[in-house]
Amino acid sequence: MSDEARLTHLDEQGRATMVDVGGKVETERVAIAEGFVKMAPETLALIQSGGAAKGDVVATARIAGIMAAKRTSDLIPLCHPLMLTKVAVTIEAVDTLPGLRVEAMARLKGQTGVEMEALTAVSIACLTLYDMAKAVDKAMEITSVRLLSKTGGKSGDWNHPGSDGAR
Amino acid sequence: MSDEARLTHLDEQGRATMVDVGGKVETERVAIAEGFVKMAPETLALIQSGGAAKGDVVATARIAGIMAAKRTSDLIPLCHPLMLTKVAVTIEAVDTLPGLRVEAMARLKGQTGVEMEALTAVSIACLTLYDMAKAVDKAMEITSVRLLSKTGGKSGDWNHPGSDGAR
Amino acid sequence: MSDEARLTHLDEQGRATMVDVGGKVETERVAIAEGFVKMAPETLALIQSGGAAKGDVVATARIAGIMAAKRTSDLIPLCHPLMLTKVAVTIEAVDTLPGLRVEAMARLKGQTGVEMEALTAVSIACLTLYDMAKAVDKAMEITSVRLLSKTGGKSGDWNHPGSDGAR
Amino acid sequence: MSDEARLTHLDEQGRATMVDVGGKVETERVAIAEGFVKMAPETLALIQSGGAAKGDVVATARIAGIMAAKRTSDLIPLCHPLMLTKVAVTIEAVDTLPGLRVEAMARLKGQTGVEMEALTAVSIACLTLYDMAKAVDKAMEITSVRLLSKTGGKSGDWNHPGSDGAR
Amino acid sequence: MSDEARLTHLDEQGRATMVDVGGKVETERVAIAEGFVKMAPETLALIQSGGAAKGDVVATARIAGIMAAKRTSDLIPLCHPLMLTKVAVTIEAVDTLPGLRVEAMARLKGQTGVEMEALTAVSIACLTLYDMAKAVDKAMEITSVRLLSKTGGKSGDWNHPGSDGAR
Amino acid sequence: MSDEARLTHLDEQGRATMVDVGGKVETERVAIAEGFVKMAPETLALIQSGGAAKGDVVATARIAGIMAAKRTSDLIPLCHPLMLTKVAVTIEAVDTLPGLRVEAMARLKGQTGVEMEALTAVSIACLTLYDMAKAVDKAMEITSVRLLSKTGGKSGDWNHPGSDGAR
Repeated sequence: MSDEARLTHLDEQGRATMVDVGGKVETERVAIAEGFVKMAPETLALIQSGGAAKGDVVATARIAGIMAAKRTSDLIPLCHPLMLTKVAVTIEAVDTLPGLRVEAMARLKGQTGVEMEALTAVSIACLTLYDMAKAVDKAMEITSVRLLSKTGGKSGDWNHPGSDGAR
Repeated sequence: MSDEARLTHLDEQGRATMVDVGGKVETERVAIAEGFVKMAPETLALIQSGGAAKGDVVATARIAGIMAAKRTSDLIPLCHPLMLTKVAVTIEAVDTLPGLRVEAMARLKGQTGVEMEALTAVSIACLTLYDMAKAVDKAMEITSVRLLSKTGGKSGDWNHPGSDGAR
Repeated sequence: MSDEARLTHLDEQGRATMVDVGGKVETERVAIAEGFVKMAPETLALIQSGGAAKGDVVATARIAGIMAAKRTSDLIPLCHPLMLTKVAVTIEAVDTLPGLRVEAMARLKGQTGVEMEALTAVSIACLTLYDMAKAVDKAMEITSVRLLSKTGGKSGDWNHPGSDGAR
Repeated sequence: MSDEARLTHLDEQGRATMVDVGGKVETERVAIAEGFVKMAPETLALIQSGGAAKGDVVATARIAGIMAAKRTSDLIPLCHPLMLTKVAVTIEAVDTLPGLRVEAMARLKGQTGVEMEALTAVSIACLTLYDMAKAVDKAMEITSVRLLSKTGGKSGDWNHPGSDGAR
Repeated sequence: MSDEARLTHLDEQGRATMVDVGGKVETERVAIAEGFVKMAPETLALIQSGGAAKGDVVATARIAGIMAAKRTSDLIPLCHPLMLTKVAVTIEAVDTLPGLRVEAMARLKGQTGVEMEALTAVSIACLTLYDMAKAVDKAMEITSVRLLSKTGGKSGDWNHPGSDGAR
Repeated sequence: MSDEARLTHLDEQGRATMVDVGGKVETERVAIAEGFVKMAPETLALIQSGGAAKGDVVATARIAGIMAAKRTSDLIPLCHPLMLTKVAVTIEAVDTLPGLRVEAMARLKGQTGVEMEALTAVSIACLTLYDMAKAVDKAMEITSVRLLSKTGGKSGDWNHPGSDGAR
């Protein structure tokens, strides 16, 4: 059975388990993920109005995302503790959504990929944006959280088929 | 300006700040949130095959969601520490997606709502499902994470306009 | 079926879940637990020799136990976050074992018991003692970790049948 | 004085301190530990009855143990942060006890051993089992938590004299 | 011996212990603390130059302080877990120092004071400022971290004798 | 612009970001920091009286400092997770202050410095000392928290100009 057709986090008895990464080679690994917070146009306008205010909403979500990436192995039961060398989170308005787009990049030189770190950064940044705007718009949705690309590791580079990869 | 038209997590200078909940009344508060992990039909089939295996994927994600709800104030910068009296997470297959639907409920008697706890439980459970199946399907998407309903508190009960509320 | 004959942390479908303590009455609750680290007589002698040295081994384990009690809900998946009003850990030599006995007491006024907090304090204090002496004695055993007594709550006071309760 | 006859976690003044592992060589290190939860026969029967239910009790404890192993350096004051490459926890019924046996394995390539990670996984898994069954049996005991074997490192391989080592 | 002349965190045997706050009355409690990061004038100028840049340095430190306040009982061994209802951190330039002044306020209705929460917020915000500017000025000093005022609780209101209290 | 004249934790848009350390060389890195808790002479006398009592105050603060160093990347938003190989904290009375002096040393072989780890250990140890003595002296000040020296890394060794470096 190929590596592509079994759940690696289950052992032969179907029990959840950490994958053993001890035998994997250390390579430079990068993962980029994105997600969106869809909201009413008035909510987006409110977040965008006022320079300082807007700055703090976005800065708070960015910091929350970076800190969450570092705690991924505390949150996702079967993730390995990792020594990330870089995490970056960017947040931008998407008027056509309308809403905000969050992109996160995680990087390390190590034996296992950093997809979960990038996805966790995106998710917690989106939740933080929701938290800060929920008093005016409880109906916001966090949507299309997905991996855009990964590089490094045995399985090689990968880009999401529905995206143009690392932007 | 009404309570509905300003960002309560910014002070008058536009700085991010915790809302003071000290003056709020203690009431029973419940929040229910949902989210989806959209995947290839083969991935869903693989998760559903094998009783024990399936059980462990779902049980792991459920436990991760419950534990994350308890750590919400550690993850979301402006959330208050809360004494949750109950968290429940359920996960079910949605063949038409295809994928898995996660629903989380958080409850407490306190001075502030538990929306973020329910949404955090959903998000981390979804990320855990992604983690456990990512070896076979990196293109999965976490989507439509949203609050379904909240009850209790000054602002009263609320149901998401696009849903039938607490299911 | 009586409350005494089902596993309260499983719902009707057998899924792990937090017990809802929202309906429980707030009472003063105290739990006392104990545990032992059994070791070679030379190891115990080494720990006991030298006033300052001994003090620091025991002080470190006591602090570790107190800090762990406060993190119980982070460690035990279905435990509720609690506002402990007091945690105390005492450690004493038991020459006949030979080894060390750890006792922990946890207290709060709340809706759920503090048995797990007392037991977690004992377990982590025992592990810390093991850690500090393992260079000289890897064969040590942590043994007889158990609840001695609990008071408060609907089910009333309880003493371990094999002990003389809170000492 | 030989390495075997002093407490390495105390400095010359008897103060608790982290051992400096900077000079140690990086080797593959594995530790295996075990522990038992002794209970009334009816409690064991209850845990074993019902496939799904049993599965969730055991799955929850296993996940708790794995997650705790990753947090060992947060809990045990003088433990080093480590990049575990693998943690596995297995739980099986022991009818003659009667009760449950927990075994944990931790592995990494690094400068210091993983005994504490394996022992912490066992202890927290045992506490989680206690938590889930305590409504029916408060008198359960966590017992014989010990290191079974360690491999790697300067001091070489070690098996507990009272066991048959890594099973 | 008066309450003012013993160390309440040591028991009669001189062992570190959590104070039992179970018997204390629940009152509204507020604590305000301050601290300073003293730096070269060029460093302060660099932090102040560029609107967005300055905003992010200060916003990051403010968020770090707020998050740290919520984790005080995780960091300070004998602190009680608390349900803070409000934490606020403000940071301002002090040209005469030269440097930055951090002020933190913590509030709750509870049985124990929030001095440590306010002081922890100040300390971690100062460390974050140091971290972000250390590439240009390693010689910065964190100085005069102190409690300015506390209100609520049995011992009544208190203002630091060397300050004008809550500013 | 030289490395000495920009804030490395801000990107070109002035947004807070983690510095990418992936390209840095692994070297042995050591940082030493100090800080002081200034107090009334009676407070210092009280802490110093009674061997065991004094031991526990100091031991508790030392343990808190060591544990905090390991959690630096959890507390300081843009710090990298690190695998410290050694942390040491010493505390001594300074009669002329009067008060206590805390010194912390952090060491690792890695790609980034450990200044923040040493400074965090000092700060949390000082806060713990404050906590344990605050019942008798709320006016204590934490002062002169600073880096004494760092060795290793591209920028080479550094000693604080106002100190005699690593003591």
